[in-house]
Parts: sequence; structure tokens; C-alpha cells
Amino acid sequence: METKERILLTALRLFNEEGEPNVTTNHIADEMDISPGNLYYHYKSKNDIIWQLFLRYEIKIKEVLTIPDVENTTMKDMWLYLNLVFDVIVEYRFLYRNLIQLMNRIEFLKRHFRRILALKSQTALDILKQLQSLKILKADAATCANLADQIALTATFWLNYSVAIFDDSFDEQKKLSHGIFHILQMISPFLDKQQKDLLDQLSREFLT
Amino acid sequence: METKERILLTALRLFNEEGEPNVTTNHIADEMDISPGNLYYHYKSKNDIIWQLFLRYEIKIKEVLTIPDVENTTMKDMWLYLNLVFDVIVEYRFLYRNLIQLMNRIEFLKRHFRRILALKSQTALDILKQLQSLKILKADAATCANLADQIALTATFWLNYSVAIFDDSFDEQKKLSHGIFHILQMISPFLDKQQKDLLDQLSREFLT
Repeated sequence: METKERILLTALRLFNEEGEPNVTTNHIADEMDISPGNLYYHYKSKNDIIWQLFLRYEIKIKEVLTIPDVENTTMKDMWLYLNLVFDVIVEYRFLYRNLIQLMNRIEFLKRHFRRILALKSQTALDILKQLQSLKILKADAATCANLADQIALTATFWLNYSVAIFDDSFDEQKKLSHGIFHILQMISPFLDKQQKDLLDQLSREFLT
Repeated sequence: METKERILLTALRLFNEEGEPNVTTNHIADEMDISPGNLYYHYKSKNDIIWQLFLRYEIKIKEVLTIPDVENTTMKDMWLYLNLVFDVIVEYRFLYRNLIQLMNRIEFLKRHFRRILALKSQTALDILKQLQSLKILKADAATCANLADQIALTATFWLNYSVAIFDDSFDEQKKLSHGIFHILQMISPFLDKQQKDLLDQLSREFLT
């Protein structure tokens, strides 16, 4: 693998494990056993590395947020879909842990992330409307709009919230499953009985 | 005012304005025109200052989260109450902007903040139950529990979310009002018609 690519992968791992503010470019070079000069030959600053990682994250999250039209959607599909979204968030979790500082530090990142958040709300709204047209979900327009924003907010901050509320020994995958079910439970009051039961069954399967 | 107190107030202002990671103890001493040695005479580290500020925040937020039993609760009361909660959060916003890092850095803060979050959920649940017993709100137990957690999560991360989604020129107070109405709209589908109308009227009054 080329040095340029190895730098990105090493930085991503260190940022995720130790928190981006605690990792310097020297730290990354040292971990790879290359000279700081060699690293600077490829990337002129830490912000440059963060920006390149962000661009990869952006491609992946946009892919996941482009949903296909479906003829059938059950709570099981929704659960699987939210798992895909959370997988991308977990892979680039350093961005979410430190979002406000990074947005203030890197102007491009702020503008791009803002658009991703708008896209998250829009995708959530599109899915809710699909569920409505399939007669699975029943809610007025104002409720759907508010639920969509709430889903975007929760998907964005669930990782931070789970760090804050759960004991450190609590299993990582369990934390995510709780987040996904938390989102699904938000729409639960507006579901038909069959899908509500399916959701209860799924939550027994995956949360215990 | 004593130097010890002035240090805390200066630190709080700088942390809020410039972000806690960007403010050093030297920076605080310089802003006050005292020597770093004088500052260290009162506080042995930046974490020590943060901890003292946290203790003040903790007293204020606990005061606000201790709700009196009321015989009458309208959406107007709820709106005023959420304003009180958000006022404390805004006063100590540096804690919320940087929560995960601070919790990882200061073990005491992690344990205390975890308890505050649990208290936020519990208070939200108590209020929802009061609204139920007043027959203003109608929702099953699972919905109430989920709403309470969702209210705690939103109150905790709304400031960060609003920085992320709103244009920088957007008025600070408007951002907060949006957060408060976002929370009230979450319970809106479960309200009786009178309170739902009152909520719509309030939102026209304060969001436009």
C-alpha cells in the first residue's frame, strides 16, 4: 500500500481511538515509523488529512442516504437500513465526537456537513412518506416533518449520547442497537399494529 | 471581587466564547492581567477550574430540574420551563460543546454528568405523567418513556445541532426557541386539541 494511503488509514484509526485533538501529525508519523518530513510531503497539515478523510466519509454517507424506491418496507428493513447508516457513522466517529470544533476550524467541512445533515432530514422524510403511502404509518405533515428532523438529530448525536449515558463496560454494538431502536420507537406510535408488533419482537431479539 | 472568583468568571467567558480546548491557563491569566503564578496559587490546573465551574453548573441545573407539583400545566408553562433549562445550558455551553472530551478527561465530571442526564430523563418523564394525569396528554407508557429520553437527548445536544444546521448569522435566541419548540412538537401528537392549538399559536409568536 502506498504511503499516502497508509497515512490516511493510520490517522483514521488514531483519531477514532484517541480523539482527534489528542493526535498530532508527529504522532501519526511515529505510529507508521516514517519521518515527519515524509508525512508532510504527502499532506501539508493535520487539517488536510482530516479533509481527505471527510471526503471519503461524504461519499459513503451519501451513498447510504440515497434510498431506492421500494414496494414493501417493514420494520425489519428499516432496522437493517439504520444499521447501514450507523456503520458509516461509527467508521468515521471522530468527526461526530468533535463536530463543532472541526466545523469551526475547517470552513469547507462546515458547509459540506451542513448539507449532509439537511440530506439526512430529507431522506428520513422520504422514508416516512413511503411508509405513509404503503399505509404502514399514519401521521400528519407537521408530525412527519418534526420526526424527520428528530431522526437526523438522533442519528448525528446518538454516539455522543451513548458515551454520556451508558457505563463504559457496555458493549459497543449494544449501544448502537439501542440507538437504532430508539429511532424506530419514535415512529412506533404512528405505525399500524402489525409493524408495531414486529418492532417489539425485533427489540426483544436485539436488545437483550 | 476576589481574584479566585474573577478567575472563574473570566475562564467561563473565554471557554464559552473561544472553546475550552483553545483556552490555556496562561490565556486566562493574560486576559485578567495577573501572573500565571498568581493563577496557579488559586487553581492548580485548567481541569481544576473546569471542575469548579462544573460544580456551579450542577447546582443550577439540579435546581431547575426539581419541578414543583402543579395543578395546572399549559403549553405556555412548558415553554417557560424549557426556557429556564436552556438558560442554564447556554450559560455553561462550553461543557456541552465539548462534552465527550471533557468526560474522558475528568473522571468525576463523567460520573456527575451521567447522573444529570438520568435526572433530565426522569424530570421529563415526571412532567409527561403530570400532563397525563391532567388529561392534557394521552400516550402509553412505552411512548412516554421514549419521549422522556428523547427530550433529554435533544436538550443536551440541541446547541450543537443548531450550530451544525443553522447559518452563523441566525439569531442566537431564535436558535434556542427553535430547540424548545422542537421538543414541544415531539409531544404535540399526544396533546388534546386545546393545547395543540395553544402550541401552534406560541410557535407563530416566537419563531417568526
